[in-house]
Amino acid sequence: MKDYISVGLLGSGTVGGGVIKLLEKNAEMITRKVGKEIKLTKIFGRNLEKMSAAYGDAYEYTTNVDDVLNDPEIDIVVELIGREHPAMEYMCQALENGKQVVTANKDVIAHYGKKLFDIAGKHNADIMFEGAVCGGIPIIGPMKSSMAANEIHSIMGIVNGTTNYMLSKMTDEGMDYATVLKEAQDKGYAESDPTADVGGFDAARKAVILASIAFNMAISMKDVDINGIESVDACDIEYASRLGYAVKLLAIAKNDPENGVSISVSPTMIPKKHPLASVSGAYNAVYVNGDAIGEAMFLGLGAGRFPTASSVVGDIMEAARNLINNDKGRIGYACYKEKKICSPENNVFPSYIRLSVLDKPGVLAAIASVFGSQSVSIRNVIQTNERGKTADLVFVTHAVSAANLKMALQILEVLPVVDKISCIIRVEDSSNG
Amino acid sequence: MKDYISVGLLGSGTVGGGVIKLLEKNAEMITRKVGKEIKLTKIFGRNLEKMSAAYGDAYEYTTNVDDVLNDPEIDIVVELIGREHPAMEYMCQALENGKQVVTANKDVIAHYGKKLFDIAGKHNADIMFEGAVCGGIPIIGPMKSSMAANEIHSIMGIVNGTTNYMLSKMTDEGMDYATVLKEAQDKGYAESDPTADVGGFDAARKAVILASIAFNMAISMKDVDINGIESVDACDIEYASRLGYAVKLLAIAKNDPENGVSISVSPTMIPKKHPLASVSGAYNAVYVNGDAIGEAMFLGLGAGRFPTASSVVGDIMEAARNLINNDKGRIGYACYKEKKICSPENNVFPSYIRLSVLDKPGVLAAIASVFGSQSVSIRNVIQTNERGKTADLVFVTHAVSAANLKMALQILEVLPVVDKISCIIRVEDSSNG
Repeated sequence: MKDYISVGLLGSGTVGGGVIKLLEKNAEMITRKVGKEIKLTKIFGRNLEKMSAAYGDAYEYTTNVDDVLNDPEIDIVVELIGREHPAMEYMCQALENGKQVVTANKDVIAHYGKKLFDIAGKHNADIMFEGAVCGGIPIIGPMKSSMAANEIHSIMGIVNGTTNYMLSKMTDEGMDYATVLKEAQDKGYAESDPTADVGGFDAARKAVILASIAFNMAISMKDVDINGIESVDACDIEYASRLGYAVKLLAIAKNDPENGVSISVSPTMIPKKHPLASVSGAYNAVYVNGDAIGEAMFLGLGAGRFPTASSVVGDIMEAARNLINNDKGRIGYACYKEKKICSPENNVFPSYIRLSVLDKPGVLAAIASVFGSQSVSIRNVIQTNERGKTADLVFVTHAVSAANLKMALQILEVLPVVDKISCIIRVEDSSNG
Repeated sequence: MKDYISVGLLGSGTVGGGVIKLLEKNAEMITRKVGKEIKLTKIFGRNLEKMSAAYGDAYEYTTNVDDVLNDPEIDIVVELIGREHPAMEYMCQALENGKQVVTANKDVIAHYGKKLFDIAGKHNADIMFEGAVCGGIPIIGPMKSSMAANEIHSIMGIVNGTTNYMLSKMTDEGMDYATVLKEAQDKGYAESDPTADVGGFDAARKAVILASIAFNMAISMKDVDINGIESVDACDIEYASRLGYAVKLLAIAKNDPENGVSISVSPTMIPKKHPLASVSGAYNAVYVNGDAIGEAMFLGLGAGRFPTASSVVGDIMEAARNLINNDKGRIGYACYKEKKICSPENNVFPSYIRLSVLDKPGVLAAIASVFGSQSVSIRNVIQTNERGKTADLVFVTHAVSAANLKMALQILEVLPVVDKISCIIRVEDSSNG
């Protein structure tokens, strides 16, 4: 047996580079804590010259991935090339070769997690992915270990930094959606096609991973009710604030013993006193409710070179410990539960609804009677912000099933006095009544 | 080998009872996750009848601790009797018998941690203590695992629920110190002798444990500069608020490469926007700054039957995994670092100082010249709150060494115009300048 643990790295971009530098900087401490040196030996990437210019001659660089995946000397393969393909295939090959795999690839874990865990199980290898959810925040590890004794009731997370940055800006500076998106794009915080972030799809992938671990069941993207922040505007944040709420894009996963598990991503109003309400800018946070622990929250930087490298190298150290101690498969992927997913229309929660309506007498009565006809009861109304011939009419409902609310909205949409349904925001508060 | 893991429990009080009930309630899930049944077999306590009335006839009860400690069938001993003695001796005996030990005893870990870890190492056993710090919050586990790749720069924690409850009440309701202490005692949140909590000693024990893990060094109680909240009054919280700060009792451990490690417990002003500022009531939180992760915070219930049981049973599950996989000593206690402690007088930070002064001309000038003579530079002054012949004079200094500040205060104390030095609060902000 070698007197060190050999690591092969796929991808030397932002996070890959962070992993290289972190392993170098804290080498002595890492060796002390693990019991053996962790030696990065080979790096796979596209451009040999660029890599050696960036990271020096301590490593062997290759453009042929098999040099890493099939090297019998390599113990741990770290996948940081991103995207689904060929990253997934590379990880499969590494696992089939009996190697430990560490990844920060949320796309692959969200879409092919089950497949990879099965292969890992068959070949007695570990696959670890702390860096795939919320960058530096330790959340997968604590759920699998320190919090493992809990039946988890719910998870609510701010898991997308781009939208949290945008909503924070809208809140603090009253900026409108289009302006803040433009600014985020100019600063490189949002992609030129921002759909994955603002549409809630990135958050949904993280929700899938978190919910799978929390509820011990295999969950897939199609189980998630995904709603983006595109229709939220500065005025909605202002109305919410008047009612005592902050607006956040939340991934919410709940395990209701009767209705089953519901998973959604939606712009959500939460009371300003809730710990999630003050998580701003690039910070992410995951709020967990378990039967023993009660409520706990994990906050940190959701992305970035070194925060993510922190999680990846932490996983490399765990994977190395498992190797050294002959303890691979130590914490398996325990998705043993029968999957019962609550269909979105059976989901029950209060909602905020902003309607643009004609500014004339009798409008409020007409709309209220539609809500009443569909058993949607109202707990707050705000009427302000006149805009020429139309006005904003804001309702906050009591808890209502998504199906009933949808019916009411369908009727409202064709009501002559309603110009349009401008914005719908989920409401989460302690009572939720 | 038995087809289950056998657990013996010492102590069936609040937390012990929680552990019994949690192991019962989530038995199936725990078995699934660990791979073997975890079977609580024997319980040691003082009163056989009371125990069997409370927990039924599934367990063997004993008043003789050796029945548990020396039982060759028992794999894991869970110590929940509290206090230092004989809990420490029981744990030593269990470790010497090769048993895995799980405890929530902060007193023993803070005072005898090194001794116990040495015995555990010698006998190839594990000692786990997630429940000893901040009840349900997973913080020891993440520091040893997910965050293990980080050089930790600093830890700031709200680690005492009683004082956080009191300071929250004083903040929200403007109650004075004596009234809120009385109320906390009446409600059972504070002891009749509240010194351990309000004097900062409980927090100091947790600071010792957290700093030892964070900085990989053996730290003891005498290394901690301990200051309680006794002199903080409603007016101080009000002045702090006007300056944009909240007041919390913080355990602060910093690793300065030049001056060494400083560990203190003090009432501290932190900017209202800091994530710790909004942690209120019975919640605890630990805020970590590491070289890779950046800033991260862990929040949860700092005490209580089930939150603490959550941590204890999580540790039992880890201890069981180590047993099953023949992986004891997996994560050792890595206090390999040479200990260099910064002496309190070399500590440099800004302070808030409230003086009760005679209300006459020239007082401010006299005091300001004393500060100036000791190189204490001032960044804020508030003068208000007249009380007959005396007035409050509040200063916030720039960062200054504790030695210089102490000199200035010694001179002020005997200055004829100064009635008394009413309150001193540490200030922590991003600049700290």
